[in-house]
Amino acid sequence: MSAPPNPYTVRRIVKWGECDPAGIVYTPRFLDWVLEAAESFFAEVVGVDWFQLNQKYGLGSPSVSVKLDFRKPIQFGQPFTIEVLVRRLSRSTITYAMRGRNGAHELCFEAELVSCIVNHAQMKSVAIPDDIRQPILAYQAATAAVLEKDAAA
Amino acid sequence: MSAPPNPYTVRRIVKWGECDPAGIVYTPRFLDWVLEAAESFFAEVVGVDWFQLNQKYGLGSPSVSVKLDFRKPIQFGQPFTIEVLVRRLSRSTITYAMRGRNGAHELCFEAELVSCIVNHAQMKSVAIPDDIRQPILAYQAATAAVLEKDAAA
Amino acid sequence: MSAPPNPYTVRRIVKWGECDPAGIVYTPRFLDWVLEAAESFFAEVVGVDWFQLNQKYGLGSPSVSVKLDFRKPIQFGQPFTIEVLVRRLSRSTITYAMRGRNGAHELCFEAELVSCIVNHAQMKSVAIPDDIRQPILAYQAATAAVLEKDAAA
Amino acid sequence: MSAPPNPYTVRRIVKWGECDPAGIVYTPRFLDWVLEAAESFFAEVVGVDWFQLNQKYGLGSPSVSVKLDFRKPIQFGQPFTIEVLVRRLSRSTITYAMRGRNGAHELCFEAELVSCIVNHAQMKSVAIPDDIRQPILAYQAATAAVLEKDAAA
Repeated sequence: MSAPPNPYTVRRIVKWGECDPAGIVYTPRFLDWVLEAAESFFAEVVGVDWFQLNQKYGLGSPSVSVKLDFRKPIQFGQPFTIEVLVRRLSRSTITYAMRGRNGAHELCFEAELVSCIVNHAQMKSVAIPDDIRQPILAYQAATAAVLEKDAAA
Repeated sequence: MSAPPNPYTVRRIVKWGECDPAGIVYTPRFLDWVLEAAESFFAEVVGVDWFQLNQKYGLGSPSVSVKLDFRKPIQFGQPFTIEVLVRRLSRSTITYAMRGRNGAHELCFEAELVSCIVNHAQMKSVAIPDDIRQPILAYQAATAAVLEKDAAA
Repeated sequence: MSAPPNPYTVRRIVKWGECDPAGIVYTPRFLDWVLEAAESFFAEVVGVDWFQLNQKYGLGSPSVSVKLDFRKPIQFGQPFTIEVLVRRLSRSTITYAMRGRNGAHELCFEAELVSCIVNHAQMKSVAIPDDIRQPILAYQAATAAVLEKDAAA
Repeated sequence: MSAPPNPYTVRRIVKWGECDPAGIVYTPRFLDWVLEAAESFFAEVVGVDWFQLNQKYGLGSPSVSVKLDFRKPIQFGQPFTIEVLVRRLSRSTITYAMRGRNGAHELCFEAELVSCIVNHAQMKSVAIPDDIRQPILAYQAATAAVLEKDAAA
């Protein structure tokens, strides 16, 4: 039996300035976290940071669409995690599925982000280069069981 | 024949600090604009700003879900508009449909935001008070043709 | 007698998401406003927006220093203004003096921002081009009385 | 001989969305970092987070003034640190001195933040409670040599 897959996970704490006068996280901050999680995933799992993508590859990864579903408030001062999975990988797009969980591992929010790899100069979609595609495919294979478990739930 | 309905519309310019090193709007900033548009709509169409909602009514309007679809980049330095419509009004939730358009009136992004009216102290959904519900219903009726035209398109 | 000088002024309202759980403006948002005021000043008074400065001139305007002094809280939902003056113009730097005032024209905050005009590729300071310098000098001359009145106060 | 003092230090990486179209950190983001560093310092060195300060103590810590001096750009993708020292502690105010340094330990920016402890309801300055003052005094004593070395340099 193999070890359980280990999804890429970002750990954070809610900051004072991320909360609104009602004392809860101001909605747009969740999307800041989602983009920062995709950015870290790219740098650490793909091995290319977004600056290198821009300058070495001449590519960019603008967003095509975003979905956010809020399940439960995240408490200030409590650490929480964002798990990053890859739901689909097409010729030019990456569909991330993310889950934010509190310290008790309860689901607090879900996000889906579709990013498109484009030629930076023309802003036209291109085939994802192989040295970027391969680590994403490998990650997707290694974490497939996590997504399947979710789909079954 | 009556005059065409006039949806509530926010006018803006893309700011330098809202763009990323690729020179395009950084994705989370769209959600800042969407929330700010909902906030202005509330203050100007409903006639209650979110601080009054919090302090006078003891209510809040946390987000339940968000969808963003990006169609076309918005150019820096060009004015653009965000049109705010109300797609659904339930006992406790408001579903906003928004469209961002550039100066040539081309659709650049679409957003759907579902907000829930909650009792601030307990964070539990409540029936939207009548003096808030009525102006939203009136607005929805006055702008229904805009949403229908969209659905038909 | 000539008309009083008319300083370049930005008008705003404090937004819900700019306030923290204590219900007051979160400190870093003041610096967002200061930079946005400098950006608008450049676009409207100098006649060159920061994207044009970057792309047409190959120049940038990174910050050298910032000072912020907070005098009085700005109330949510109340319009306030930021007045932009130019305190000094050297070979490569612009020193902005700004004042934020509430609806009763009371001073709420003061800011000083020093920006340096640099060659974008090398990030080295350059002499401010004449077609940028001239409108700033003209503005400085036209509004000199406002700064002098302040200094005397 | 005692060990050298160990100033409280935050470690970070510049994020894509914190940079502007010129590819450098957008000025207001530095102030986000400074406030977040003060917030972490409070939570970890004083042992009271800003939510507890607000809810348990009925206090707040609005800013009185800010100074930022930029010495050297911080490169994207490079880790950097922010060191937090306490320059002065008066009856109601805390003066933080912070230094941002890159991976080569070069000084990239300096910040001074003056925060005032106020009664939240009345927004009036109060004497800093003893259980908050003591850990700050202890920290100040333990790190005094770092500030002195700086003053001498």
